[in-house]
Amino acid sequence: MLSKNYDHIILLAHGSPDPLWKQPFESIYNEVTEIYGAEKSSLAYMELTTPTLEDAVAALDKDVRSVAVLPLFLAVGRHLRKDVPAQIEALQTDDLSIELLPPIGDDLVVKNAMRTAIAQHLGSA
Amino acid sequence: MLSKNYDHIILLAHGSPDPLWKQPFESIYNEVTEIYGAEKSSLAYMELTTPTLEDAVAALDKDVRSVAVLPLFLAVGRHLRKDVPAQIEALQTDDLSIELLPPIGDDLVVKNAMRTAIAQHLGSA
Repeated sequence: MLSKNYDHIILLAHGSPDPLWKQPFESIYNEVTEIYGAEKSSLAYMELTTPTLEDAVAALDKDVRSVAVLPLFLAVGRHLRKDVPAQIEALQTDDLSIELLPPIGDDLVVKNAMRTAIAQHLGSA
Repeated sequence: MLSKNYDHIILLAHGSPDPLWKQPFESIYNEVTEIYGAEKSSLAYMELTTPTLEDAVAALDKDVRSVAVLPLFLAVGRHLRKDVPAQIEALQTDDLSIELLPPIGDDLVVKNAMRTAIAQHLGSA
């Protein structure tokens, strides 16, 4: 069961020309699909590599009506303020609503983890 | 006390032309300096905004001999494989060693937090 009435969540990473760059995102995505199934989530890239957000939307089951896009980004910049909303605007239809969520870096769990990771490098104060 | 014998850690974020993009990194950095002091860590950006990595190195105390650069990135791509190592190479001297750490997204604590954040959006399996 998806929370907040989304039928499907697209994890959206930035994208890179470097194929090795995708590995950590694919690794997380594979774990997510093991738990929730591939019909509940997909992985897409904003630019520079595939699958694109358009590819991910085109691959959705026909009965999917509401999609959330969760950016695997640490912060909101031009991409999440302008580029991705424009991509989403072009992909929405009367039968498919697409909501852009805040980036995963905004999540308190992730913020706390980054603090912890930094503290591990800095040692005791 | 810093772990692994670094005198100082530079948190290195990507950089964006969007000034609001810096806020989450500045927020984490401010918390880090509250605990460890500004002499133990600094925040820099790889491109598109300041302070640059060069600025951060120029501002180091004269007694700093070993610096770690911790990328606030989720994955290793061209930037961390080529651009940042080249910047570091140009900034190292006989009196200053600079080590590039794996990106914070490689940290198990951060990976687990991203899984948790995604699971919160997906709800119960």
